Amino acid sequence: MDELLEQILRDCHPYTTEGKLANYIPELAKANPDDFGIYIISSDDRINRAGDYNKTFTIQSIVKPILLLLALMDNGIETVREHVGVEATGKPFDAINYSEQSLLSDHLNPMVNMGAIAMCTLIKGESYLERFERLLELTRKLAGNPSIQLDEAVYLSEKRTGSKNRALAYLLKTYGMITDDVEDVLDCYFRACSIKVNCADLAKIGYTLANHGRAPFSGERLFPEQYASYVNAILMTCGMYDGSGEFAVKVGVPAKSGVGGGIMAVVPTRMGIGIFSPALDQKGNSVAGIKALELLSKKLYLSIF
Amino acid sequence: MDELLEQILRDCHPYTTEGKLANYIPELAKANPDDFGIYIISSDDRINRAGDYNKTFTIQSIVKPILLLLALMDNGIETVREHVGVEATGKPFDAINYSEQSLLSDHLNPMVNMGAIAMCTLIKGESYLERFERLLELTRKLAGNPSIQLDEAVYLSEKRTGSKNRALAYLLKTYGMITDDVEDVLDCYFRACSIKVNCADLAKIGYTLANHGRAPFSGERLFPEQYASYVNAILMTCGMYDGSGEFAVKVGVPAKSGVGGGIMAVVPTRMGIGIFSPALDQKGNSVAGIKALELLSKKLYLSIF
Amino acid sequence: MDELLEQILRDCHPYTTEGKLANYIPELAKANPDDFGIYIISSDDRINRAGDYNKTFTIQSIVKPILLLLALMDNGIETVREHVGVEATGKPFDAINYSEQSLLSDHLNPMVNMGAIAMCTLIKGESYLERFERLLELTRKLAGNPSIQLDEAVYLSEKRTGSKNRALAYLLKTYGMITDDVEDVLDCYFRACSIKVNCADLAKIGYTLANHGRAPFSGERLFPEQYASYVNAILMTCGMYDGSGEFAVKVGVPAKSGVGGGIMAVVPTRMGIGIFSPALDQKGNSVAGIKALELLSKKLYLSIF
Amino acid sequence: MDELLEQILRDCHPYTTEGKLANYIPELAKANPDDFGIYIISSDDRINRAGDYNKTFTIQSIVKPILLLLALMDNGIETVREHVGVEATGKPFDAINYSEQSLLSDHLNPMVNMGAIAMCTLIKGESYLERFERLLELTRKLAGNPSIQLDEAVYLSEKRTGSKNRALAYLLKTYGMITDDVEDVLDCYFRACSIKVNCADLAKIGYTLANHGRAPFSGERLFPEQYASYVNAILMTCGMYDGSGEFAVKVGVPAKSGVGGGIMAVVPTRMGIGIFSPALDQKGNSVAGIKALELLSKKLYLSIF
Repeated sequence: MDELLEQILRDCHPYTTEGKLANYIPELAKANPDDFGIYIISSDDRINRAGDYNKTFTIQSIVKPILLLLALMDNGIETVREHVGVEATGKPFDAINYSEQSLLSDHLNPMVNMGAIAMCTLIKGESYLERFERLLELTRKLAGNPSIQLDEAVYLSEKRTGSKNRALAYLLKTYGMITDDVEDVLDCYFRACSIKVNCADLAKIGYTLANHGRAPFSGERLFPEQYASYVNAILMTCGMYDGSGEFAVKVGVPAKSGVGGGIMAVVPTRMGIGIFSPALDQKGNSVAGIKALELLSKKLYLSIF
Repeated sequence: MDELLEQILRDCHPYTTEGKLANYIPELAKANPDDFGIYIISSDDRINRAGDYNKTFTIQSIVKPILLLLALMDNGIETVREHVGVEATGKPFDAINYSEQSLLSDHLNPMVNMGAIAMCTLIKGESYLERFERLLELTRKLAGNPSIQLDEAVYLSEKRTGSKNRALAYLLKTYGMITDDVEDVLDCYFRACSIKVNCADLAKIGYTLANHGRAPFSGERLFPEQYASYVNAILMTCGMYDGSGEFAVKVGVPAKSGVGGGIMAVVPTRMGIGIFSPALDQKGNSVAGIKALELLSKKLYLSIF
Repeated sequence: MDELLEQILRDCHPYTTEGKLANYIPELAKANPDDFGIYIISSDDRINRAGDYNKTFTIQSIVKPILLLLALMDNGIETVREHVGVEATGKPFDAINYSEQSLLSDHLNPMVNMGAIAMCTLIKGESYLERFERLLELTRKLAGNPSIQLDEAVYLSEKRTGSKNRALAYLLKTYGMITDDVEDVLDCYFRACSIKVNCADLAKIGYTLANHGRAPFSGERLFPEQYASYVNAILMTCGMYDGSGEFAVKVGVPAKSGVGGGIMAVVPTRMGIGIFSPALDQKGNSVAGIKALELLSKKLYLSIF
Repeated sequence: MDELLEQILRDCHPYTTEGKLANYIPELAKANPDDFGIYIISSDDRINRAGDYNKTFTIQSIVKPILLLLALMDNGIETVREHVGVEATGKPFDAINYSEQSLLSDHLNPMVNMGAIAMCTLIKGESYLERFERLLELTRKLAGNPSIQLDEAVYLSEKRTGSKNRALAYLLKTYGMITDDVEDVLDCYFRACSIKVNCADLAKIGYTLANHGRAPFSGERLFPEQYASYVNAILMTCGMYDGSGEFAVKVGVPAKSGVGGGIMAVVPTRMGIGIFSPALDQKGNSVAGIKALELLSKKLYLSIF
């Protein structure tokens, strides 16, 4: 199996030059497009890995399912569902999904920016810094890695340059979907996106989702089963932005990508997969990462369809 | 199990009065809102059923996955994918997904009307009547029911009143995505929507998709495995129109609904389910049908997430 | 003054090569891009003209103000206003101005295709052929030219290839804004667009609008003053499609262009102008025609602002 | 004539109860819906007035033509046109005119919020406070009223609650159409909207536009003629938001309304009119104000069409 992973990385390496590094914030453009790693945890406690699996990168949008999990743990499904819808928007990740001068909770989706910003307000905490600390703590716990930290440079870069996210947040505020101070909420969101992880971290988080809330190895229950189903279902329909349909057809498992180059894939009951290659396609998904998952899915019959 | 189904029908019966009969064509408004049936085929060849499982109704949009299958069988995945995209549109089933004066194949989806109309042109046949006959033949074969027929009254009603579909088809023509005569293509589409089925038919078709192309009981391969995965993945992300996200979260299996009141659900490797209750919610899905699937999914742990 | 016109045609002639002939119907692509003519009637009964002012071309969208006039004469302002709005759509001439699954009369504008198609149903007549005949008769009367005819080849070409207009018309039908047979209504619309005129005809029609309903020379009242104001106001805000704002700033008079290459300009109380040059900009307006009007407006202080 | 104005105010007074006070900022909701005034300056130096013509209110969007004038005076037509388009957007005043993930200068219009915010960056000044001071100075000069001041309470209220404008401004920033600090730019914009004027002020500003840049009485040239034409043309096509078409048809002169309840009308070569009645229709225009202008236009043949 390790050989299979090595082979897949070799076969997909040419794709690392096909995409482009995220350049909407300067820090992300400093990544090495040559980095390529994969890490898999299987239900029989096996670990397989290849390439740059221990290089760190910022989690970016892969924090969205963790945000959603924490919102669910803090409020339950009903309240979260009331505030943030679950339908695909049919639009890019940072789209203004808004029409005819109205904005409803059903226009939001937890896997795109507007919905994720709204979810920051559903996490409990005295301050938005405390809310972020709780999110960071959950991330560490899910990844079984207490050393996970914020990437300060990326965070500051996001905060300085995040005009589009500010536009989205002020729109949420306009329609009463955020009542707190917009800059406070955004600070939490920018920090959340700047958590530094590696492929092993993503694989463990993905495994716990695949295992319906139980951690790998220990089997400890970290969150209720029904929250796993809720998150996985949304990852399936919307986790790869407006490339989710293509990914469902070609790979066939719930997954989430981030513009940092990571992808976390969830193979229900079977596997958690973390993958990293920072060159992105036009939709913001790792080109080589998707290609590797496609090959892996074919080889190991991962598709749940 | 038959008792469970009886119980679920009883529990969900109040929902049959919550929706509205489809009224966009007069014939559909003649349905009896009280009808409610379910039929399940499981992987151990068991059959379970309750209520009005043998009442017939028109297949409507549930013909879309069959249309897609036939297009795949006639052309292969690559060609079909080139002509009709796979992303959720984020819009209602009959929406004009079109923007900035352009219309691309990626704007289409096989599970919404524009994409389905385009798929009619991908089916092989000398004439559009022959294309329809081949589709009807496939439907009969998948359902193992050679007596499946067209509902002539519904077909004529659709043909007479289908202005929105005509608008969609002429738009496809404008952008070169249909080259044949629009009325010919629509005639095939209107006929396709007017095929008369019952819950047993839908359960068998659903089972064959769940079983990756092999018919129930005989195990005969009716189409290649990869086409089943392709269809099921699209049913998962888009089968319930702009209610697909909600359905993924609440039920968690690929499914397709039609405004005739039917729902076909595909529980991969486990079950095919046909359900019928003609009162619809605002998105065009059977209210009681969805509710029954929700209960069933909870009881039998059907969700693939 | 004739010298001024000659000079302007010479100065603007280079612009005749900058645009493109309309090619959405084959017949229009046969025009000679070198043709360039202008014809002006002034309030002191003077006629000035230069270039190919007597070449004929199809009226295309310039028929829209005549359609509107006839609708007003047949129904009065109130009824027409109820069926067709007056706001700029902010979109191209053949746009689908439609959103959130609804289509209201306020989405329509008499100067873009959807609104003009709807206006065909407001004209009186036993049949749609009779409605067209009445429109042709009014055109002849306004132009003082009983020999104006239909261009049969363009009409047939429009009828054969007009998919976009069919899409628009079926959308109108879907929302109850057309109740008659769509092909009948479109036949009237396609004929209307195919009326053959020259610069002199347009100048006379424009003069009558400028003169608040009184014909040039004779002073005969052809329609009530308030209809002229209604039409001129709409020409000002929407006559040059989504280039109307630019035209208001640069030329400053009500005008209507057609993809046949004609422009009719109305200088209230002072002039009617007909101009012809078939090469169009991306918005469907004659490039050299607009340029000539711009120069003329500067020289003669035509802007009403 | 004063009698005519008294009569018109009486006849239109019932309309003051038909609209609603602007409530998007608390301060505006404190206006007295019963206030109703009009002030007219004619080309023969006559002044006519009636009602509450000397009550003050905030200028709100009527500052947009003044902003545009100053931008023109500071940069010339070409530069301003490059940064801010001139086409009607077909949308409400605070709409996000943005599509397909792109935002171009041609999507902007100086008479809607996004365009007006962008224009603040075109005014010259060391700081945004200085830019505002220059705008205030120009307003005083145009109105011949050195005592015109900022309404501090409204300004602070706008600044505190202006989420939608912040969303618009950050969107402009995202697409590089604002490079300065968003809060600085908005501060200038919020101040601009909060300038306190009365009907006499608006009449004088309107007269100067009608008189192509020359002040009433003195005849002093305050700005070049071509800037007046530019501004008036845009007022004609877009000055009354998405009610501009209706206003063109019913009143027929360039005008600008503000949510403070004011309307400034420009009757080219003939009159400047200031009117005030704070109850607004759904588009944000003074209901009774429009009605009064409609009557006045009919009585005095003001329409330029």
